[in-house]
Amino acid sequence: MKRIEDGKDYVESLRGRGLKVYLFGELIEEPVDHPLIRPSINALAETYELALREPDLATTYSPLIEDRVNRFLHIASSAEDLVNQNKMQRKLGQLTGTCFQRCVGMDALNALYSVTYEMDEKYDTKYHERLKVFIAEMQRCNYVVGGAMTDVKGDRSKAPQDQADPDLYMHIVDRDDEGIYVTGAKAHQTGCVNSHWMVVMPTMRVDPGGVDYAVSGAVPVDAPGIIYIYGRQSCDLRVLEGGTPDVGNLNFAGQEALVIFDKVFIPWNLVFMDGEYDFASMLVERFTAYHRRSYVCKSGVGDVLIGAAATIADYNGVERASHIRDKLVEMTHLNETIYSTGICSSYQAYPTRSGCYMNDEMLANVCKHHVTKYPYELGRIAQDLAGGIVVTLPSGRDLDNPETGDLLRKYLKGREEVDTEDRMKILRLIENMTLGRNAVGYLTESLHGAGSPQAQRIQISRTMQIEYKKGLAKKLAGVKEEVDSKQEALEFMGRVFRTNPYEGN
Amino acid sequence: MKRIEDGKDYVESLRGRGLKVYLFGELIEEPVDHPLIRPSINALAETYELALREPDLATTYSPLIEDRVNRFLHIASSAEDLVNQNKMQRKLGQLTGTCFQRCVGMDALNALYSVTYEMDEKYDTKYHERLKVFIAEMQRCNYVVGGAMTDVKGDRSKAPQDQADPDLYMHIVDRDDEGIYVTGAKAHQTGCVNSHWMVVMPTMRVDPGGVDYAVSGAVPVDAPGIIYIYGRQSCDLRVLEGGTPDVGNLNFAGQEALVIFDKVFIPWNLVFMDGEYDFASMLVERFTAYHRRSYVCKSGVGDVLIGAAATIADYNGVERASHIRDKLVEMTHLNETIYSTGICSSYQAYPTRSGCYMNDEMLANVCKHHVTKYPYELGRIAQDLAGGIVVTLPSGRDLDNPETGDLLRKYLKGREEVDTEDRMKILRLIENMTLGRNAVGYLTESLHGAGSPQAQRIQISRTMQIEYKKGLAKKLAGVKEEVDSKQEALEFMGRVFRTNPYEGN
Amino acid sequence: MKRIEDGKDYVESLRGRGLKVYLFGELIEEPVDHPLIRPSINALAETYELALREPDLATTYSPLIEDRVNRFLHIASSAEDLVNQNKMQRKLGQLTGTCFQRCVGMDALNALYSVTYEMDEKYDTKYHERLKVFIAEMQRCNYVVGGAMTDVKGDRSKAPQDQADPDLYMHIVDRDDEGIYVTGAKAHQTGCVNSHWMVVMPTMRVDPGGVDYAVSGAVPVDAPGIIYIYGRQSCDLRVLEGGTPDVGNLNFAGQEALVIFDKVFIPWNLVFMDGEYDFASMLVERFTAYHRRSYVCKSGVGDVLIGAAATIADYNGVERASHIRDKLVEMTHLNETIYSTGICSSYQAYPTRSGCYMNDEMLANVCKHHVTKYPYELGRIAQDLAGGIVVTLPSGRDLDNPETGDLLRKYLKGREEVDTEDRMKILRLIENMTLGRNAVGYLTESLHGAGSPQAQRIQISRTMQIEYKKGLAKKLAGVKEEVDSKQEALEFMGRVFRTNPYEGN
Amino acid sequence: MKRIEDGKDYVESLRGRGLKVYLFGELIEEPVDHPLIRPSINALAETYELALREPDLATTYSPLIEDRVNRFLHIASSAEDLVNQNKMQRKLGQLTGTCFQRCVGMDALNALYSVTYEMDEKYDTKYHERLKVFIAEMQRCNYVVGGAMTDVKGDRSKAPQDQADPDLYMHIVDRDDEGIYVTGAKAHQTGCVNSHWMVVMPTMRVDPGGVDYAVSGAVPVDAPGIIYIYGRQSCDLRVLEGGTPDVGNLNFAGQEALVIFDKVFIPWNLVFMDGEYDFASMLVERFTAYHRRSYVCKSGVGDVLIGAAATIADYNGVERASHIRDKLVEMTHLNETIYSTGICSSYQAYPTRSGCYMNDEMLANVCKHHVTKYPYELGRIAQDLAGGIVVTLPSGRDLDNPETGDLLRKYLKGREEVDTEDRMKILRLIENMTLGRNAVGYLTESLHGAGSPQAQRIQISRTMQIEYKKGLAKKLAGVKEEVDSKQEALEFMGRVFRTNPYEGN
Repeated sequence: MKRIEDGKDYVESLRGRGLKVYLFGELIEEPVDHPLIRPSINALAETYELALREPDLATTYSPLIEDRVNRFLHIASSAEDLVNQNKMQRKLGQLTGTCFQRCVGMDALNALYSVTYEMDEKYDTKYHERLKVFIAEMQRCNYVVGGAMTDVKGDRSKAPQDQADPDLYMHIVDRDDEGIYVTGAKAHQTGCVNSHWMVVMPTMRVDPGGVDYAVSGAVPVDAPGIIYIYGRQSCDLRVLEGGTPDVGNLNFAGQEALVIFDKVFIPWNLVFMDGEYDFASMLVERFTAYHRRSYVCKSGVGDVLIGAAATIADYNGVERASHIRDKLVEMTHLNETIYSTGICSSYQAYPTRSGCYMNDEMLANVCKHHVTKYPYELGRIAQDLAGGIVVTLPSGRDLDNPETGDLLRKYLKGREEVDTEDRMKILRLIENMTLGRNAVGYLTESLHGAGSPQAQRIQISRTMQIEYKKGLAKKLAGVKEEVDSKQEALEFMGRVFRTNPYEGN
Repeated sequence: MKRIEDGKDYVESLRGRGLKVYLFGELIEEPVDHPLIRPSINALAETYELALREPDLATTYSPLIEDRVNRFLHIASSAEDLVNQNKMQRKLGQLTGTCFQRCVGMDALNALYSVTYEMDEKYDTKYHERLKVFIAEMQRCNYVVGGAMTDVKGDRSKAPQDQADPDLYMHIVDRDDEGIYVTGAKAHQTGCVNSHWMVVMPTMRVDPGGVDYAVSGAVPVDAPGIIYIYGRQSCDLRVLEGGTPDVGNLNFAGQEALVIFDKVFIPWNLVFMDGEYDFASMLVERFTAYHRRSYVCKSGVGDVLIGAAATIADYNGVERASHIRDKLVEMTHLNETIYSTGICSSYQAYPTRSGCYMNDEMLANVCKHHVTKYPYELGRIAQDLAGGIVVTLPSGRDLDNPETGDLLRKYLKGREEVDTEDRMKILRLIENMTLGRNAVGYLTESLHGAGSPQAQRIQISRTMQIEYKKGLAKKLAGVKEEVDSKQEALEFMGRVFRTNPYEGN
Repeated sequence: MKRIEDGKDYVESLRGRGLKVYLFGELIEEPVDHPLIRPSINALAETYELALREPDLATTYSPLIEDRVNRFLHIASSAEDLVNQNKMQRKLGQLTGTCFQRCVGMDALNALYSVTYEMDEKYDTKYHERLKVFIAEMQRCNYVVGGAMTDVKGDRSKAPQDQADPDLYMHIVDRDDEGIYVTGAKAHQTGCVNSHWMVVMPTMRVDPGGVDYAVSGAVPVDAPGIIYIYGRQSCDLRVLEGGTPDVGNLNFAGQEALVIFDKVFIPWNLVFMDGEYDFASMLVERFTAYHRRSYVCKSGVGDVLIGAAATIADYNGVERASHIRDKLVEMTHLNETIYSTGICSSYQAYPTRSGCYMNDEMLANVCKHHVTKYPYELGRIAQDLAGGIVVTLPSGRDLDNPETGDLLRKYLKGREEVDTEDRMKILRLIENMTLGRNAVGYLTESLHGAGSPQAQRIQISRTMQIEYKKGLAKKLAGVKEEVDSKQEALEFMGRVFRTNPYEGN
Repeated sequence: MKRIEDGKDYVESLRGRGLKVYLFGELIEEPVDHPLIRPSINALAETYELALREPDLATTYSPLIEDRVNRFLHIASSAEDLVNQNKMQRKLGQLTGTCFQRCVGMDALNALYSVTYEMDEKYDTKYHERLKVFIAEMQRCNYVVGGAMTDVKGDRSKAPQDQADPDLYMHIVDRDDEGIYVTGAKAHQTGCVNSHWMVVMPTMRVDPGGVDYAVSGAVPVDAPGIIYIYGRQSCDLRVLEGGTPDVGNLNFAGQEALVIFDKVFIPWNLVFMDGEYDFASMLVERFTAYHRRSYVCKSGVGDVLIGAAATIADYNGVERASHIRDKLVEMTHLNETIYSTGICSSYQAYPTRSGCYMNDEMLANVCKHHVTKYPYELGRIAQDLAGGIVVTLPSGRDLDNPETGDLLRKYLKGREEVDTEDRMKILRLIENMTLGRNAVGYLTESLHGAGSPQAQRIQISRTMQIEYKKGLAKKLAGVKEEVDSKQEALEFMGRVFRTNPYEGN
């Protein structure tokens, strides 16, 4: 297939693939042309356009194909690569105001890169080479790769193999000479319908009793046996109203769907894990370490919301009031905290044995944990500045009715110089981001994507080097106990005190 | 007209009134039968039903008609009356999970009761008697009275009379022998279409240059010259989908509309303020003091959300996990803080000169200020417990399609014993309350209703008796400055240290 | 002994008792005259003085002796009694800026009153009558009674009887015809040296294996076998510097000591529990329910801190700056939340079978849980307003040195009109309350007294009626499951929806 | 003078200088030997020792003297230099648990480096060369340089020249051929008595009416006319008790003093600003940008406190309890946020025209703003884990008294395996850091050092590029207004989207 060069190519590449996508109880003829789906495609297309407009930010050189590639398909070979992923993510958040859906794949490929390397070291398998071939192909074609991790999970108190229904976690149901067959369902898969390929991975640690749940591999999104049931979003129907400003964000939206696999075949050359259960948790942890810091994108979305809040305050004539100004400062303070903690995680990266760089896990969790809270607070403040009208605004169609249109223009006016319809548009954008379609991505996905809050707390607990810190306290207090001084040089503190960050440990 | 006895009577009383209500650009034939409007009528009808089921809680004896009346129409003659309003509000929040729309009128009538009394004392007017006649009539008929205060405000940095368009605050445009004529618009009017009468009031202090903005009076909701433009809500279209569980809260919703008055006539016997600009701020402050504590209703809605969060945790099999339990505790802690501060405000009431009791202003503001934050945090935690599926759940119609229905039932199952559709219903209820239709009332209305956060901070600033507190500190530190000891006995601290709360100052 | 009438009587009553009190490694001759101890006596003396100055607030009629008694010795016979305890507590917090040490006994006697009644019902014991005789005697003499609950606890992961040393929880080590003998230690006992009697109680639930740990009884503070090791406080030595303003709060401080019991004898007529292990947790829970709401006193201390913060802002010339004003509002908002939640707990009281009223447990825990956080935030804001000088101020003695005194007066001046020494005094008061001697009571005791934060969360978890709330959600979402409607009428929700609060359930 | 090589040299270099230091109303003979002052000298000495032990972390190559220098004396020539300052600061916070006092000078020299360069460009002055000579001398001798900025300020509502007393801000009172003479006072000067030189700077913007307040220059700390009045600290007297564990942090403490200048002479070759009032605010802003991010040191101190909290939980037998573990996670989360935001500010540095690198202002303010809150919350949680005993622990001297020592060892025991005295030491360390001597530095200095919270909010307000963000929102909402796209490339956003951080703009 020919390389996808720009957003237009990308959109065309999605047509005519015969994906089985269900929405509102019906099979969709052509997702690309569905008005409810299209905004999510537009958002993804921006990842192609940005690469053309700002190549430093959104492309880089890949030794795998000895050419520049879209940064979303690049294997990070330095801390700087990881930092620049974050910068690109923030920019795309600013440009789309929503989820642009291409990070999961990026983080999945990077995680698999080092994990397959270490699996091969231990088991003399060939996963790493297979993966490199696959990545190179993706880079050449400039494809969108989705990463499919989250199983539906059933009873959360039970292990995969102990569920009443074995399919509640994806597992291998058959193997033959050609490859493996997997069954299961991956929930709320970001941008799956807009992808070309999906990489499946286990969703959590696997114990020896569940080897068939330790599976990873790549499948084209239109592989036989896959169906998609589209997730509905708050206010999703507004886009069907035909161009009213009520849609809020005119062009962009996110996408999540339930993907069901019924004995889907994966040929051996695309299998990246087959029963190595002892590597499942490593894969999950590395993926989530990358992905938790990828939520820096939300600082870009936050920039939009801050801008919208400032605009509505301006339109209302109160932008300079001290308490308004102070609230914009608060929003900025929180938003930049997300950005900084993510950047610091990437900056403090270290090389894995495969050469691929891994960002700092502790700080990635600190970043994501803020992301589970701050966007909600930014949303609340934005609504505060917007006024109650953000949720009681009449329909855009009332503007078109001659009996009500002029009344609305008269009575919903803000500052004299401001066009009432512009004021309504900004209010709808704030509604969109705090209650509506993009609140799904900005709020709830911020909460749960890459792991819910408790997952970060567990990970922080594991990496916080508490014995080392106890040693510091005991020394200052004069407690005579042995302290293991080697602890410092490893793990998190080792990275903190490394003075040349780009050289690794 | 005959007295409304129950919810059914109430619904019937709304039919055939010829209100001019616009929604989605069209004039609605009969609001009562409109599927999008009906849930808000159902919620209000519960105020009638509760009065029958629990008369102690929702009715009381009124000396005005020497009979028991619905508590929403009662003039508070004791602190206990005010406390019991709050208890009724919490119960109705529990029963409907939304805004039941009858508090504004209750608080407006109570505020007017004492303010008209004091206006008459000063100006020898007859407002108080007129008001009593009006209230008695409302009690006899058991009507719903809306309170219309919030003007659309235009440029917030300018006074009413300094706006580019004089109509951006309601004002008297004409007077004759029969009465007055008012023009303007009242924004996001709770339950206005579901009311029988509306009482208009100024939205803020009026200075001498704006006497025609100091106006209050009662109008039937179908008075000539009034039109309603219905406010659209997040996810409002779901109710039109025909009975899917996607609606979340099956029967109840709130209602807010923009009400436009074009030279609407108010006869003198229903005029309660006509130019007494020096009483405008008193009326606003008393109304908001009542109304800010009326937000105790949100603790009832919060009970529903806590219950929903616990249910979904139970369905997921993790209700007993320590971090889940801890989050339910946190929700409860915040929710009961709203309740307690409201109750304490009511409990610490004092009699006005009219005999009507006024709750404590400081504590009402403390209560409402928590309400501008805590429901958002409860919402966030509820989404945390729900999991990401709360925003990616497929449409209810996908359950009906044979190709997808069984797959959803299989893959969206929680604990083995739980019906998948029940799990989906609870998820939809959480979505409804945190992003959807009732998030409008539970979140954004909590933020802005009865005054935005800054309004509470200003009011706390005014009533915090800072000189008295400085005196306490100076005394303990040995600073020799005169302290005004009389300060304590007045205002807030006077009420704090009153040992018999039911006797007043 | 003759009745203690006023503060002076009280101080005299403490002299010459031969208590064994150790401080800084030495046995103290006469605690009353020790400069480090005296401020704590002064604080307690205020409870006597207030009773004379404001008898409505600090005394009430007791049927036990058919006379008015100090409210600290009263058994609550109505919700109003409990509310008025809180009001008295706030006032005393305002007057002393510290812990006045008389609440523990009040709450202990009230808890024992109902628990002994119910023990007697079950076991046909005579505890309740004994207790009434004891209380009457305390009322007649107007004594200070300390409540001794907190054991030293050793290894917190083990039950009392499983500790390496059996004495780490107080227990009965011997019984004879005259009475019982107890050994153990009670930690950080508030005001113990300033009391006349102590009532010992178990510190937590006792299981059948630990019957000897289920013990309660009264002892005079100078009983043989008791020794006190005085707890040192932050900045405790300043009071020994001889009258410099560095002491901050000139006259008042708190007191806590470790009390060690070595086979201390309690005669049968003063034994209130002897092995009834199944009532230990009831006693602990009722005591803590009372005591957690007694922390309303901290809102009075908070008033002092708010006043000090406002004063220093005034002295610095910036009291009217919008961000300063806003911080005072924030302090007030938090402080009144403590007050309101406590009052609401008391208001929502119900009668126990003994006739003694019990405040609402849920709301008492909500109150105390705020107390574990808000004073710290008030302290932080007060330091913010004070400026860095609050921790870098030179010693008061530098004012007396001619070479430095005038320089300090010149350079530490605030607004021209303000005396520099007054400015220094207020700074020292803020230091005292946020880092110094009274920070012990205002901050750390607020955190741990009446139970650490986790204790409140456990108690909220127990009383939050989660099944009832699940029922609310299921009903609105259309889930068809049986809901136990009787649940509502009991426990917390029963009290919420009771319309006549003074009549009980 | 010979170069200071290690901590011992450093201590000796401070002897016999005849500084006029007052403490407790008396002139101190030799500060080096004063037990109350010595711990602050010990802390500073660690900056010398670390340079020997970990030269990569604490030294670097300086082109000014073509040799390695202590990093505290280095002019940053790359972003990496700034990042490594932060790493060194965290390490020293871990080693001392307090303020090591050498950052102010480092940040002052760096700020002056670029500001003098730009002054010279505009006014053709010679400040920059003078400064380079001075810095080279400091580097050669390895001196401690203090930065003296904070004036005493008097009435905060008035400008320097409008104060009742002109000396309330430092100003030039005379000039002659040799140099200038300055009078005024600098408040709470960190480590001034432990320094060799001080660099004075204006404390805020200066307007044309106040040219004599625009002054900067270097003076030896023992220059004629300077006197020091030592700031007393919470619990400062404990160190005089002779080696009891009550001191908490056995060896280290901070130091702040009031420094009074009475016509102190500065020769022309050490004058770095003389009336260039238009550069005063630039100097203040650059200094505070450096210094606000220098508070990363508090993450090192936080590591000690986290370690102490974990240790006491361990000693109490509850370290593995879920709520304890969760609190340690929370502490870590907050602590690493401080670290990350500071590092990100340094990482996002850019070169000034002088070649000296400047860290990002926005993120420095975000970092410092967290520092004004999080240490207080860490302190609160540490006290939570410590239990009430942290403020009621008897004096260490009670351990020595045979009548009480064994009782304390018996009753204050934690887990059986833990030595009671070790438990007491850790409790005292927590008291030291949250209420005692080092709470001054960890809490209050964190609040006010480098600017109080409002100062950060103002600076964030100035740099938040709100017009750029408005443009983002308008574009997505379809508002047709001109947006200034050049805005992005400048200031904060320019640095965010720069992909090669080490090359500057």
